[in-house]
Amino acid sequence: MAFKESDVLKALSTVDDPDLKKDLVTLNMIKDIEIFSDTVKFTVVLTTPACPLKELIKNNCIDAIHKHLDKSLSVEIHMTSNVTTTRNDGPILPGVKNIIAISSGKGGVGKSTVTANLAVALKNKGAKVGIIDADIYGPSIPTMFNCEGEQPEVKQVNGKNLIVPLEQYGIKLISIGFLAPADNAVVWRGPMASSALRQFIADTEWGELDYLLIDLPPGTSDIHLTLVQTVPVTGAVVVTTPQKVALADARKGLAMFKQPQINVPVLGIIENMAYFTPAELPDNKYYIFGQDGGLNLAEKHNVPLLGQIPLVQSIRESGDSGLPVVMKDDATAESFNQLAEAMARQVAIRNANMEKTKKVEMNA
Amino acid sequence: MAFKESDVLKALSTVDDPDLKKDLVTLNMIKDIEIFSDTVKFTVVLTTPACPLKELIKNNCIDAIHKHLDKSLSVEIHMTSNVTTTRNDGPILPGVKNIIAISSGKGGVGKSTVTANLAVALKNKGAKVGIIDADIYGPSIPTMFNCEGEQPEVKQVNGKNLIVPLEQYGIKLISIGFLAPADNAVVWRGPMASSALRQFIADTEWGELDYLLIDLPPGTSDIHLTLVQTVPVTGAVVVTTPQKVALADARKGLAMFKQPQINVPVLGIIENMAYFTPAELPDNKYYIFGQDGGLNLAEKHNVPLLGQIPLVQSIRESGDSGLPVVMKDDATAESFNQLAEAMARQVAIRNANMEKTKKVEMNA
Repeated sequence: MAFKESDVLKALSTVDDPDLKKDLVTLNMIKDIEIFSDTVKFTVVLTTPACPLKELIKNNCIDAIHKHLDKSLSVEIHMTSNVTTTRNDGPILPGVKNIIAISSGKGGVGKSTVTANLAVALKNKGAKVGIIDADIYGPSIPTMFNCEGEQPEVKQVNGKNLIVPLEQYGIKLISIGFLAPADNAVVWRGPMASSALRQFIADTEWGELDYLLIDLPPGTSDIHLTLVQTVPVTGAVVVTTPQKVALADARKGLAMFKQPQINVPVLGIIENMAYFTPAELPDNKYYIFGQDGGLNLAEKHNVPLLGQIPLVQSIRESGDSGLPVVMKDDATAESFNQLAEAMARQVAIRNANMEKTKKVEMNA
Repeated sequence: MAFKESDVLKALSTVDDPDLKKDLVTLNMIKDIEIFSDTVKFTVVLTTPACPLKELIKNNCIDAIHKHLDKSLSVEIHMTSNVTTTRNDGPILPGVKNIIAISSGKGGVGKSTVTANLAVALKNKGAKVGIIDADIYGPSIPTMFNCEGEQPEVKQVNGKNLIVPLEQYGIKLISIGFLAPADNAVVWRGPMASSALRQFIADTEWGELDYLLIDLPPGTSDIHLTLVQTVPVTGAVVVTTPQKVALADARKGLAMFKQPQINVPVLGIIENMAYFTPAELPDNKYYIFGQDGGLNLAEKHNVPLLGQIPLVQSIRESGDSGLPVVMKDDATAESFNQLAEAMARQVAIRNANMEKTKKVEMNA
């Protein structure tokens, strides 16, 4: 068989990335083509290691080679990934590809739990992930990662003091909880809190990351304004529970990111505590907080629903014990794995189709 | 029978108020004594209409009259109340006897639900009650009282503009939700939010109230500082759910009120979402968020536990539909009635035993 690399590329140019709506060759996703007598080898570089379409794309590639070249060929595909970014300038966080704001209008909807499990799920799929716990008044990340009471080191780089993030379960972490004693209230006016967040962003040695998740405090206040004024945010995720008073606050969160002068793309909505299933009645779903509130909100605002996470005692227990539930091998872990895939997918779609976010210049 | 008023007072001076640890005569709680041939009538003025010891005190009075005067006497007691106060000066809120901060370190623990139901329970027992919804970034009170979209009137008094609170179910209400459209985010820096709260306190026509409940936002931030700097707060209640990350934030809330320069008495802790009981398994209690977390926190910090409220779908549904669950006649309503009694009792004890709170002077 006498194929050339161009024949392989031509065949693969019939395969589209279903999300990005362009073919793999145009998207520059095909690398390292090798042709042997009865085998074709190449690499497909996905836009995220958490790509939920990995198997579909792989099978479509094999089908295309068989259809357009020779159906007896053995096709060996190495699936890898290179997370995309729209961030390529600016002195702040130069090695961070995507900055994702995890927000909720209302507190107590499980935002930190979702952040912790998303981070570990993304890391398990091969991504480099960090978390800034920006919930200055109620930092939960130290508990959820079982590193309460630990203190990050500070080192000097070019005469400047840099905070070194802690690392737990492969995730880089920084939190106000590492800087203040657990039983003390941080009774700070807004400017103090904003100053702490700026340090976590600009004076911390984050290195290279695919995803930096920002666990925001509830509401739409100083910290949120400071974030978007300090660094361009790739996209925002809004976590809500299904009840009306939570949805009302989630709408406010959506409205904030969509304000013309803020203009951060909303990647999607996560509905948490969607229903409760007692172990003794596995077929019963108790919609304690209401049914499909997050789904309806997503549909109304034309925003993707990234997932519906059930209210499960083990999720809360895992958070309290400092071992995110996604590290276990059960149905609940699977719901967070799917959530991570859905979010990574929306990041890739956003990076392919939208302009980079601008830092907000605002007198507020 | 020839008794004098002084004989009746002497008999009643053997009856103690169990909470205030003094006798009813010393406490000035006996009024309007009338003596007839075979009957003694008098009024007992309790320190709150929500007094849980009402029946006990009444029976002890009857026993004392029978024991010290004549056991054949008919005793007619009119039980009434005059809510106590330590507030008797200052131009701000002169007609408000007690200002109660309802706080939580963490959001989403049901603080607004608790506030709404406490208010209605106190009112049902005869108290005059108002609510300031100070959760500037996520006001839930308009939804919970079914008055979304309504707007308070403004009237001129002595050349000054005063906001007139709305009134629903007999409760006076003010909320940022009445001033901003529901779908809009109030993206305010702290000073704007603080200014709104000062208006709700100082430029609103509250009139005479026994209890003004302040539904605070989560955390320990600008709004909290502004509150204690604007008006002396009688006492604070901390609402928490039982899980570790909520308790950690509740501890911060406790620490804030106990800071020497703030020094607001903590009336007690409310444990919300204590357990879930499905209708099909009425004997099962699912401790989804953990067991007795609020109880343990109260014991550790030597603060009263005011109540443990179960996680019940009807509580959430009632909140979403704008009719507080305590207005229904069921077991859940009873748990809020007991909670209201427990809180009113702690207010009375606090007023009897502690100095009035001072307004905080602080450069923060």
